Amino acid sequence: MTSSRQRDKTRVRRVPERGIYDKDAVYEILDAGFVCHLGYTASHGPVVLPTLYGRLDDTVYVHGSPAAGMFRNAESPAVCLTVTHVDGIVLARSLFHHSMNYRSVVVLGNAEKIKDPDEMMLGLKAVTDNIAPGRWDDARGPNDDELRQTDVFKLEIANCSAKVRTGPPGDDEEDYDLDIWAGVMPLSQVAGELIPDPRLKAGVDVPEYL
Amino acid sequence: MTSSRQRDKTRVRRVPERGIYDKDAVYEILDAGFVCHLGYTASHGPVVLPTLYGRLDDTVYVHGSPAAGMFRNAESPAVCLTVTHVDGIVLARSLFHHSMNYRSVVVLGNAEKIKDPDEMMLGLKAVTDNIAPGRWDDARGPNDDELRQTDVFKLEIANCSAKVRTGPPGDDEEDYDLDIWAGVMPLSQVAGELIPDPRLKAGVDVPEYL
Repeated sequence: MTSSRQRDKTRVRRVPERGIYDKDAVYEILDAGFVCHLGYTASHGPVVLPTLYGRLDDTVYVHGSPAAGMFRNAESPAVCLTVTHVDGIVLARSLFHHSMNYRSVVVLGNAEKIKDPDEMMLGLKAVTDNIAPGRWDDARGPNDDELRQTDVFKLEIANCSAKVRTGPPGDDEEDYDLDIWAGVMPLSQVAGELIPDPRLKAGVDVPEYL
Repeated sequence: MTSSRQRDKTRVRRVPERGIYDKDAVYEILDAGFVCHLGYTASHGPVVLPTLYGRLDDTVYVHGSPAAGMFRNAESPAVCLTVTHVDGIVLARSLFHHSMNYRSVVVLGNAEKIKDPDEMMLGLKAVTDNIAPGRWDDARGPNDDELRQTDVFKLEIANCSAKVRTGPPGDDEEDYDLDIWAGVMPLSQVAGELIPDPRLKAGVDVPEYL
């Protein structure tokens, strides 16, 4: 239910071919999210898993536990890191032109397992800052034992592209006269009221950054 | 920042090994969404793209345009279809135990390109019903030319698993006494007010199903 006409409206930006503006667009979309879908090729075929991530300059950091078998024992697996924000359902007059409004980024490359403890901390901070800015300085930091149980991978943002669709449906000209409602149902992700841990220590207030 | 303790709390359900209850859990998660992340292996490596989908019984349907080069010309590509609902950010006292609450399903298998026009319509209806129930009977249906421009793939829900994390953080016992706020920031996807197409024909009301 996509068409060439719809695709014309979809701005596809490839980096670095189209310059720094494009990379800014990629960064903006990456920074607007914190869960990516990370794809890699396992022995039995492709695998896609939701994963927390964070960006620092030209690098995306993801983390996983060695025990979880992420990437098995690969040190530098080929991956595709995809981040998607669904902004709305596009209800066209024709079923064919139904679509969604979204912002999406794809980063291709080889994820590299970080071995240097300082760099690991940098990556973990990027992930934490992306989830809850300010949390890094507030929560108890990782100890050596915890760091040993943590894998952090980095992926360079080089071979990447952004795709954005916005606006109303694009129907065939002859369909605009049909008595069918058309438009967009906007969607967004919202945060609800914070739920304190039942075991929260008495007298501990919600920090300002939350 | 996951740990074995956290993973113990994560219910992993594998189907069909763990029976029909598990499959119901998979269906429930699939039916609660409409955008999947579909992974496949291209010549240069793994690719993950956001894609609309719909479920009918034991089958997930996805669609793509032949021109978009989805799966290139593969008739039966190995895929991983992943659906994730992010329900909240889990703010633990230790950075290590930070996590997210989510419901996720992974379906592995070979997607099969549908050739029978009636079966294509069935698949397209499943996708449409998943986006906007009631829309299928209201919008203008696809004509032969549009069907020729549309690819519909089906994927059997057989080799699949669901993963769910709910509830408060799971901190190390000694950390519960720290003066650090802990809890969950709930997240949900909400629909905003419908935005009518600027070219909406005068007198056409919003249908009840929307």
